[in-house]
Amino acid sequence: MAGNSIGKRFSVTTFGESHGAALGAIVDGCPPGLALTEADLQGDLDRRRPGSSRYTTARREPDQVKILSGVFEGKTTGTSIGLLIENTDQRSKDYSAIAELFRPGHADYTYHHKYGNRDYRGGGRSSARETAMRVAAGAIAKKYLRQACGIEIRACIDQLGPIRASKFQWDTVEQNPFFFPDPDGLERLDEFMRELKKAGDSVGAKVRVEATGLPVGLGEPVFDRLDADLAHALMGINAAKAVSIGDGFEVVNQRGSEHRDEMHPDGFASNHAGGVLGGLSSGQPLVAEVAFKPTSSIMVPGQSIDVHGKPVEMVTRGRHDPCVGIRAVPIVEAMVAIVLMDHLLRHKAQCGDVQVDTPVLPMRD
Amino acid sequence: MAGNSIGKRFSVTTFGESHGAALGAIVDGCPPGLALTEADLQGDLDRRRPGSSRYTTARREPDQVKILSGVFEGKTTGTSIGLLIENTDQRSKDYSAIAELFRPGHADYTYHHKYGNRDYRGGGRSSARETAMRVAAGAIAKKYLRQACGIEIRACIDQLGPIRASKFQWDTVEQNPFFFPDPDGLERLDEFMRELKKAGDSVGAKVRVEATGLPVGLGEPVFDRLDADLAHALMGINAAKAVSIGDGFEVVNQRGSEHRDEMHPDGFASNHAGGVLGGLSSGQPLVAEVAFKPTSSIMVPGQSIDVHGKPVEMVTRGRHDPCVGIRAVPIVEAMVAIVLMDHLLRHKAQCGDVQVDTPVLPMRD
Amino acid sequence: MAGNSIGKRFSVTTFGESHGAALGAIVDGCPPGLALTEADLQGDLDRRRPGSSRYTTARREPDQVKILSGVFEGKTTGTSIGLLIENTDQRSKDYSAIAELFRPGHADYTYHHKYGNRDYRGGGRSSARETAMRVAAGAIAKKYLRQACGIEIRACIDQLGPIRASKFQWDTVEQNPFFFPDPDGLERLDEFMRELKKAGDSVGAKVRVEATGLPVGLGEPVFDRLDADLAHALMGINAAKAVSIGDGFEVVNQRGSEHRDEMHPDGFASNHAGGVLGGLSSGQPLVAEVAFKPTSSIMVPGQSIDVHGKPVEMVTRGRHDPCVGIRAVPIVEAMVAIVLMDHLLRHKAQCGDVQVDTPVLPMRD
Amino acid sequence: MAGNSIGKRFSVTTFGESHGAALGAIVDGCPPGLALTEADLQGDLDRRRPGSSRYTTARREPDQVKILSGVFEGKTTGTSIGLLIENTDQRSKDYSAIAELFRPGHADYTYHHKYGNRDYRGGGRSSARETAMRVAAGAIAKKYLRQACGIEIRACIDQLGPIRASKFQWDTVEQNPFFFPDPDGLERLDEFMRELKKAGDSVGAKVRVEATGLPVGLGEPVFDRLDADLAHALMGINAAKAVSIGDGFEVVNQRGSEHRDEMHPDGFASNHAGGVLGGLSSGQPLVAEVAFKPTSSIMVPGQSIDVHGKPVEMVTRGRHDPCVGIRAVPIVEAMVAIVLMDHLLRHKAQCGDVQVDTPVLPMRD
Repeated sequence: MAGNSIGKRFSVTTFGESHGAALGAIVDGCPPGLALTEADLQGDLDRRRPGSSRYTTARREPDQVKILSGVFEGKTTGTSIGLLIENTDQRSKDYSAIAELFRPGHADYTYHHKYGNRDYRGGGRSSARETAMRVAAGAIAKKYLRQACGIEIRACIDQLGPIRASKFQWDTVEQNPFFFPDPDGLERLDEFMRELKKAGDSVGAKVRVEATGLPVGLGEPVFDRLDADLAHALMGINAAKAVSIGDGFEVVNQRGSEHRDEMHPDGFASNHAGGVLGGLSSGQPLVAEVAFKPTSSIMVPGQSIDVHGKPVEMVTRGRHDPCVGIRAVPIVEAMVAIVLMDHLLRHKAQCGDVQVDTPVLPMRD
Repeated sequence: MAGNSIGKRFSVTTFGESHGAALGAIVDGCPPGLALTEADLQGDLDRRRPGSSRYTTARREPDQVKILSGVFEGKTTGTSIGLLIENTDQRSKDYSAIAELFRPGHADYTYHHKYGNRDYRGGGRSSARETAMRVAAGAIAKKYLRQACGIEIRACIDQLGPIRASKFQWDTVEQNPFFFPDPDGLERLDEFMRELKKAGDSVGAKVRVEATGLPVGLGEPVFDRLDADLAHALMGINAAKAVSIGDGFEVVNQRGSEHRDEMHPDGFASNHAGGVLGGLSSGQPLVAEVAFKPTSSIMVPGQSIDVHGKPVEMVTRGRHDPCVGIRAVPIVEAMVAIVLMDHLLRHKAQCGDVQVDTPVLPMRD
Repeated sequence: MAGNSIGKRFSVTTFGESHGAALGAIVDGCPPGLALTEADLQGDLDRRRPGSSRYTTARREPDQVKILSGVFEGKTTGTSIGLLIENTDQRSKDYSAIAELFRPGHADYTYHHKYGNRDYRGGGRSSARETAMRVAAGAIAKKYLRQACGIEIRACIDQLGPIRASKFQWDTVEQNPFFFPDPDGLERLDEFMRELKKAGDSVGAKVRVEATGLPVGLGEPVFDRLDADLAHALMGINAAKAVSIGDGFEVVNQRGSEHRDEMHPDGFASNHAGGVLGGLSSGQPLVAEVAFKPTSSIMVPGQSIDVHGKPVEMVTRGRHDPCVGIRAVPIVEAMVAIVLMDHLLRHKAQCGDVQVDTPVLPMRD
Repeated sequence: MAGNSIGKRFSVTTFGESHGAALGAIVDGCPPGLALTEADLQGDLDRRRPGSSRYTTARREPDQVKILSGVFEGKTTGTSIGLLIENTDQRSKDYSAIAELFRPGHADYTYHHKYGNRDYRGGGRSSARETAMRVAAGAIAKKYLRQACGIEIRACIDQLGPIRASKFQWDTVEQNPFFFPDPDGLERLDEFMRELKKAGDSVGAKVRVEATGLPVGLGEPVFDRLDADLAHALMGINAAKAVSIGDGFEVVNQRGSEHRDEMHPDGFASNHAGGVLGGLSSGQPLVAEVAFKPTSSIMVPGQSIDVHGKPVEMVTRGRHDPCVGIRAVPIVEAMVAIVLMDHLLRHKAQCGDVQVDTPVLPMRD
């Protein structure tokens, strides 16, 4: 597979360009018998959709997903699930001016050199629009994980530019347009974004994701460790530049006596590991963070070149997010769900019959 | 493949436990005609080998690698390359005491629950000893990349505990036992490590890796982006907890106008991207960083449980690294080499015939 | 991938049930720059379509394929190609009577036990309707192989029931509804099929496929030999029961001195091998044959059971082919094209730079 | 993976040339807890070994297999299993004469063109010696299938040259050097082989394999059907030219009313299908046949060319089998075991939780 697939047992293959006729995905390996309707997918698609607030792009993408196969009488059949979203608001004319230009910091230059033949409309395949299909596919995994195993996945914006969450009130995350868990920071955030938009500039963000309810042992040593596959899935989201598990880069200055999570008969005493030991889930909450760069499509003029190597000054017009990290929240959840689902099935294949007497440790309060 | 393989076109599959009979690997997909001898692999194996300084474990592992197939009359034949290192210094008796215990922060607990039947001798398959085979396989990729494309890969310790390199003198990296690029910090490092060893504790480290000479366009959208596959390969190294590309987590507080690397007819003006745009190599130097946690095998007593759930106090005896990050330097290089090699061949398969008139940009001085 | 994908570098993933909303496929890995329109795919789809003669099913399936992505300004971009055929003539009511029955010789019984939740309408995913997508995807491969390498693929009915082609006039194959290469047998064929239809029965057939213009060396030892991958692809077509290369089962009674194809400076003297030596293409014409069983959906009553294990007498009503082998002709071509395309790209990846002085042998006249 | 791996969940990757230092394999995905020793593998290796009768090659290959990893205290651990056989009787000098020649009907010509750099000693990687590793790996699968599921696999020579078994007395198969199930034919066989050897020629053979005890539902539609994956595995054995399932090519002249296996409450009435319906195992005995061509390494002179395109007369000296099909018997069993094992694990991953009330049908007496 040339890069458009992820997952070995629960796999997702996608197609579609920003301004093409449609986006689609094939989800393969879903166990039969899961109750599934289009409404199960639409919720997360709506969370990802731009235009829901004044801080995301003004494009209107109803993103109505259709399930074309693999579901019969309301339940999955075990055959491949075809998903489709037709593109309705394409406005290709916005982009004709940049057909021969390379936006700095964008995929224009690299796609041009790799493929020669590039769909320049709205970024084509490199557009974040492609991630809609990940969200739809991830929603299937999310539902299965919740129903079959009690696994719950949730993400939020941990930091946006200079503004960092100082507490995590998860119940407030869905109540503001920034997926921000700290109600006290909302006013500052709002002000910051307003200024940013006025400046025509963009900013980075950090997304935090947690998954609870994992059994012990998901992941496959030595290359397909759970953390390695999570890193692959999360770094593969548009604009991602860093991924960490548990304490992440802070471990560099930790001592072993400080980092290790002590174990007591009543549970783990801490979670520096972020839920992964030796590449396998430990039963502690899975905790990961992803850094998203500021989008390169901004109105601040910048120096670049065209396809002939001539210098040009670039100003991106059109509709763009000042902070792509915000909309990445449901995408991060979806990618985590896809990886967990894949490893759950892989684990069943090889170790489904393993039984040990040893108790599974909870997290201590 | 249940986790022991990496790479789709240039692939590496490994086996072997810390105290088993041998470690081995099969390298598949290497182009024919590459001059290759065991000496080409031994250099990096020696760099990884413990016991070369007083700061790494005292185990003596000569790590003599044998090439068992795939090379004929000094050149690769295009068939699968079998590699073998026999284990000679196994001392299994050191480990019998911990057969029923879980070291906190270690893979003991997760392997036990996943597989039921765990080789507890020296960590078994979860031991860092397994990475010797990655280094051997990576050396093949390194040689091909250098000879066929002029790609060079190098890594060093960027930070160890509180001590950070304040300059990068690459020519000094191989001249000290820490792979440290800043000669001015060596004395502090030496002192810090001495104290650490005395305390029986361990510490984390950050490795920085760079690759130069990459063509534009390596990587496959959308899931197998070059940065995603690098994140997978690097996070899959024992003890890795975070991976970043280019500016990494610093992008969270950057603006788009600051982050984007402007392009001029004479080259890129900066390299915040770290050599990857839209998931494809840009021709800028590839820059990545990996955080390694402090090893959990320390002599500072810690609370844990045994396989029956009873509380125990753990003190790891035996021979262990106070900083596993140091030996990770050649492993990081090897994993980067394997990923680049894989994507070079994948690129040839699909885009080998693409030709564009547009010039390839160098980095500006 | 749970079975719905084929190919490693040029890969095809499909979805869709006989009576679902649509059929679809994602073709990944196609090189950029190939001129491609829906018309390029429609030709083979029309050849496969039922209802074109009185000997295939009376279902009307216009099978209008849409290309939803991966093509820009008339050329492939190198990104994944989304294909879609909407189902228009579904008549689900025809099938409600068999929801709880197992047709003997059909996939009903095995799908029921494997998945529990079975789409019984028209065979669901097990219907030959699914192969429309293989034909569409194969047409892309066919076009690339022809344009980039001069490879031509053609198939015909070699035998249908007792009637065997005694000569191969390839130019007549497309001029009769049986893809039969021997004009002298057409009258017998026509009569035979008329009788068969009257009897409400079905019959088997043998398809012969040839590919010319192959370079030497396609295929990968030792498991992914060209003949092994062809066998996989051809045996994976609905109703296939046997696959042979070259002389096939006749080799059992051949001697080595008789079977081997002698080589002379002006070419191969014979082609018992069918174009494959040591699992790699030899440059001789590739020759394979596939046996297709008679369809099990017939009007002759037969004994079976229902989902409760009770005995039932089955008579399949609805619209069915008396000889599914006929429509398999374009499917066989498509599967051969997909395998050759995949191996062509794999060969480029690893051996694209190999050069030898030795001349490539043609077939002797 | 460049062709040297088979299987997705239970996978086998091999290396090794006929006259290299060693042969090896990595078996990945084996469930933990299986009792396994080298003796479990040695039995089948001995059955495959040449030199055990005067009708197979006189090479002495003790084929002592070592298990290097993945087994601890007598049981599999779930980690990758490393296997090794050192080559002891290499006699490379035998082959120097043919370094620049192409034996007709052999892989010499195709390897030379594909790779440029060919290990000509004894066929190198194209030698049947490589299959020793398949047999060793297959023995692991065989043991698991037997112990965990009661699946039994057995193969025999169905036909050798003109001599066909007219009855199947399975208990006699291991009691003659031809794996022939018909004691009445042994004298003719013996005479035939003696003549053949005298003539310095070789002959083809047909191997029949059966597997019993399969659950219903192994296989994955649509491309990885059980029969498709079996065809891949069996056609991938050296010298295989045809593969059939159940009635095979005889279905071409069957009617649907004749071919379909009727189902009764007390079982299947027949087994034309050979145990596969819709690509999934039906619970009927799995039956397949494989045709092996006569080896090309014979002493009858034949016309060929050298690497410069000049004509040469070839006579293969050295030690070769007059009928490679005989030794293929344990290889066929091994490949079937590997495929069944792989699909058993894949089935568990996706459908392990499926439960239906419908009874599973036995074969009727």
